[in-house]
Amino acid sequence: MTRGRKQATSYADKARLPAKARANPPAVILVEPQLGENIGTTARAMMNCGLTDLRLVDPKEDWLSEKALGASSGAEKILEKARRTATVEEAIADLEIVYATTARRRELVKTVMTARAASADMRARSEGGQRLGLLFGRERIGLTNHELGLANIVIEVPMNPEHSSLNLAQAVLVVGYEWFQAGYDGPEAVTTYNRTKPVTKELLQELFDHLESELILCGFLRHDAKRPSMIVNIRNMLQRAELTLQEVRTLHGMIKELRYGRRPDRPKRQPGYKSDKA
Amino acid sequence: MTRGRKQATSYADKARLPAKARANPPAVILVEPQLGENIGTTARAMMNCGLTDLRLVDPKEDWLSEKALGASSGAEKILEKARRTATVEEAIADLEIVYATTARRRELVKTVMTARAASADMRARSEGGQRLGLLFGRERIGLTNHELGLANIVIEVPMNPEHSSLNLAQAVLVVGYEWFQAGYDGPEAVTTYNRTKPVTKELLQELFDHLESELILCGFLRHDAKRPSMIVNIRNMLQRAELTLQEVRTLHGMIKELRYGRRPDRPKRQPGYKSDKA
Repeated sequence: MTRGRKQATSYADKARLPAKARANPPAVILVEPQLGENIGTTARAMMNCGLTDLRLVDPKEDWLSEKALGASSGAEKILEKARRTATVEEAIADLEIVYATTARRRELVKTVMTARAASADMRARSEGGQRLGLLFGRERIGLTNHELGLANIVIEVPMNPEHSSLNLAQAVLVVGYEWFQAGYDGPEAVTTYNRTKPVTKELLQELFDHLESELILCGFLRHDAKRPSMIVNIRNMLQRAELTLQEVRTLHGMIKELRYGRRPDRPKRQPGYKSDKA
Repeated sequence: MTRGRKQATSYADKARLPAKARANPPAVILVEPQLGENIGTTARAMMNCGLTDLRLVDPKEDWLSEKALGASSGAEKILEKARRTATVEEAIADLEIVYATTARRRELVKTVMTARAASADMRARSEGGQRLGLLFGRERIGLTNHELGLANIVIEVPMNPEHSSLNLAQAVLVVGYEWFQAGYDGPEAVTTYNRTKPVTKELLQELFDHLESELILCGFLRHDAKRPSMIVNIRNMLQRAELTLQEVRTLHGMIKELRYGRRPDRPKRQPGYKSDKA
């Protein structure tokens, strides 16, 4: 199997490219997949994870059937570019390191990694320019020991030991997901805002002052002895909410309306809060 | 919705239990799932990940149909125990923290986490005794802003931005997979052995001696000047293979047969190697 991918001419050439550009994703090799639909859902999972190179060893159904194309929901390109080979040896001929997934341990001397550890290993090798492959076995019986012997590393996905079997596309998704995460460098947690922004402590303090003065006037904070601890608790609760500017404005309005509503003692003019100008 | 789970009577009680025993997995809540088959494949993914509590808000098809049960392949128990509610509010009534999955950002002030960060958060809360839920939207249109407003935290799964949509069961699988990994404390990489074991350096040295003496006798290492660097390379190659005792024995035999075969100068007795007794 020859492939048209352009090789960098030297290590120095590759080193000039940023790591992301150098990363060449692993090929996915399915051994004797039985159902066209499973090839389609595998293509979809690959597309989700940024994998594009699909190789099919002696597939038992057409991977361009309507059923297969339908199951790929948007990943038709991967199916159209997929290559068929007669043997695993032919499918992996141009690769340097092959990872095989398997559900059960064999009588073989092998390095076994979790999907996460294998993905870190794959990213490092891929960025170093190595050509990688992920070998997935038949739907029911997996890989033979002969086929496993062609792989460098075995991947075992830690799952509920009482129910660990994944279907073909799910196995591809989990390993592909880990491959994608190993290259993800975005934030792990962010707070999204609409057109508003988090409030400053100064404007939050102004809200506390407004609320507490009205709570004293209306009688809620009438007990001098309890007042300090009640104020701490109220402030703490509002701190925890990480309010935005817009929400602080809304709360000022709510306090005023709750306190005065349409009653005749409602102040003619609302005091001007800094938050109204911020 | 009331549930029969026994609550620990105090924090002190909970603290005496090991972390694993205290972990109560999050409930999975599907909002208006359209297809029984998707409920079935969701149950299978839940079982893979050690999740058991499935709640269905106004499902559009029977979750105990033959199709749904078939798709669950072994997770029928989860479907049989699944609870139907009319609203999301009812489905999450007994929970304390709810995580919602969504494919697109909204105009809401929300903490957004990756599946990995959310899973670490879930594990910590779960081990602290909190009751958690994972909210998944309708197949095509996901969750409404009203439903998202009922959740504490939003989960966004980092995926290929050009093709990030996962089907329902795949979304449950990825989040459930991360939940399971967050509790996994096994090794990330091991080497498996069959009935043999890694060889000691002493027995490996004996193999080098045997190989090199035969390579000198047969003429392969006849050039004195090149010999030292050739020996370094041969030894290095064999070191890298991390040979087992059985493999060293096999190599001794291979060297002898390659050198002498059935030829008349074959030594009558093979020298006794330590590896034969180890």
